[in-house]
Amino acid sequence: MSYILGIDIGAGSIKAGLIDRNGKIHKESTARTDASMNNDHFAHAISLAIDSLLDKNSIYGIGVGSPGPIDSKKGIIHSSANLPKLNQFEVLQYITNKINVPAYLNNDANCAALGECYFGKAKGSKNLFVFTLGTGLGGGWVYEGKLFNGFDGNGMEVGHTTIIKDGAVCGCGNLGCAESYFSAKGLLGRYKDETGTTLNAVSELFVLVESGNAAARKILDLGCDVLADAARNIVNLLNVDSISFVGGLTQSWHLYGERLSKRIHSSVFPILSNRLNIYYGENQAILGAGSLVMEGEKLNG
Amino acid sequence: MSYILGIDIGAGSIKAGLIDRNGKIHKESTARTDASMNNDHFAHAISLAIDSLLDKNSIYGIGVGSPGPIDSKKGIIHSSANLPKLNQFEVLQYITNKINVPAYLNNDANCAALGECYFGKAKGSKNLFVFTLGTGLGGGWVYEGKLFNGFDGNGMEVGHTTIIKDGAVCGCGNLGCAESYFSAKGLLGRYKDETGTTLNAVSELFVLVESGNAAARKILDLGCDVLADAARNIVNLLNVDSISFVGGLTQSWHLYGERLSKRIHSSVFPILSNRLNIYYGENQAILGAGSLVMEGEKLNG
Repeated sequence: MSYILGIDIGAGSIKAGLIDRNGKIHKESTARTDASMNNDHFAHAISLAIDSLLDKNSIYGIGVGSPGPIDSKKGIIHSSANLPKLNQFEVLQYITNKINVPAYLNNDANCAALGECYFGKAKGSKNLFVFTLGTGLGGGWVYEGKLFNGFDGNGMEVGHTTIIKDGAVCGCGNLGCAESYFSAKGLLGRYKDETGTTLNAVSELFVLVESGNAAARKILDLGCDVLADAARNIVNLLNVDSISFVGGLTQSWHLYGERLSKRIHSSVFPILSNRLNIYYGENQAILGAGSLVMEGEKLNG
Repeated sequence: MSYILGIDIGAGSIKAGLIDRNGKIHKESTARTDASMNNDHFAHAISLAIDSLLDKNSIYGIGVGSPGPIDSKKGIIHSSANLPKLNQFEVLQYITNKINVPAYLNNDANCAALGECYFGKAKGSKNLFVFTLGTGLGGGWVYEGKLFNGFDGNGMEVGHTTIIKDGAVCGCGNLGCAESYFSAKGLLGRYKDETGTTLNAVSELFVLVESGNAAARKILDLGCDVLADAARNIVNLLNVDSISFVGGLTQSWHLYGERLSKRIHSSVFPILSNRLNIYYGENQAILGAGSLVMEGEKLNG
């Protein structure tokens, strides 16, 4: 059997897997990364993650998902917030030197969107927007089966759309971005504004909410409503038929999902609300990266 | 010579014109409409506007722009805020019974966007968003030469994207929409909130601003900043290379344009700001409607 090699470059590790066209992962491998790594170290980590999976006869395409900024056409990771010493790393060149098959690079949120469209709950949607709820807030759009890449793969920075004009300071330097209210960073930041207390992880905030803590509840509700308004904007602009929320923060969906869905449905145009599906679940990043190969085949005929 | 017939259904009139492929209007005609008109009266008004222009040998396509809600595929105007007695009017059927050539219907903001891309200052843009600044706030997107229609032509309701969560009440029933801050309706509404005074027309607000009135200045600046944030969201999502602001309110561009452009450029990602062009000018609605024919030809080969 012949496989796709999906590679997900995450915050602290590289995950790779051999997948089939039905979205089944047949073999997996992981290598850790850390902030001290330069291009050579990072290349070595990729080798650690993929060498055990490589078999020239059984892999027919490679998809790589990475946080930005990247150049998807040239296959370059310009830089990385998690790997400050990484600089203009030619990731596709490095991998295709090992195994020369069609290879694709895209940003992680775009991969999540494509993976959700090919293999996730929204499979078959004609107009799907995916929100990635993690450290930051990302987004990707698949329209009529095709990923929207924007300029050099910079598209769909929904985390950096303004929902509260002149609101909280965002990591991007602007005010009132959606990400500064609903993301691990944003929720922790707003909780600190509210209480003066620094939590170590967003999981602690969710524990506080479950225990009935009023300040934590208030911050989660605020974030939830901002996220709903960001989703409203997407629906009224792009008329998507489906929204999927994926990523780590969806593990606490029971604490905000109903409020979120209700606010979205009640604020978009009725004709768009009637046909709108809202899903949530894990971001299966290896599948998302691998689905780049399937889209590439389709686009290249 | 053979022409395109462009028809613009506006708030109080129907305007029609014979145009050529270079965007020159060769002959024009207008018929007034009023709120008492039912389907028959409206059909009669269309005849008044176009009959003098009809010559079966010289028209090879018809484009109609109308406020929504419409069904662009079926060629139907479902209803109209300005013509409350209009109901499911089959506008393309009516016109093609007179002259049987390819005919297209789309909403006015979409037509403005397409017209700007074919004939306006943004001519040749590969990724253009057009804001229509009039009674309301509309928007249209032309990506790689193709209009984004969304679901049944409902796309790009940028006036109904949330910029101030839980902000001012909008005509759509929601809170904090861009339209409730920057549009003739929105500016007048916010000025009334601020001062208790009802102005008759947005032109009066602009006169007050020019005379140094502080309340009027404050409301215009607020609206301008909201519009800038709505534009920021579009740039960060869609990575447009050009934005055109068109419509009546651009006549007062000198009172807000510099502030608007500056806020947009300073709030979008630098890589997107560097390549962003911002234009403003009249909405030449007949040309916009007519450009539907040129796009139709391109799409149909």
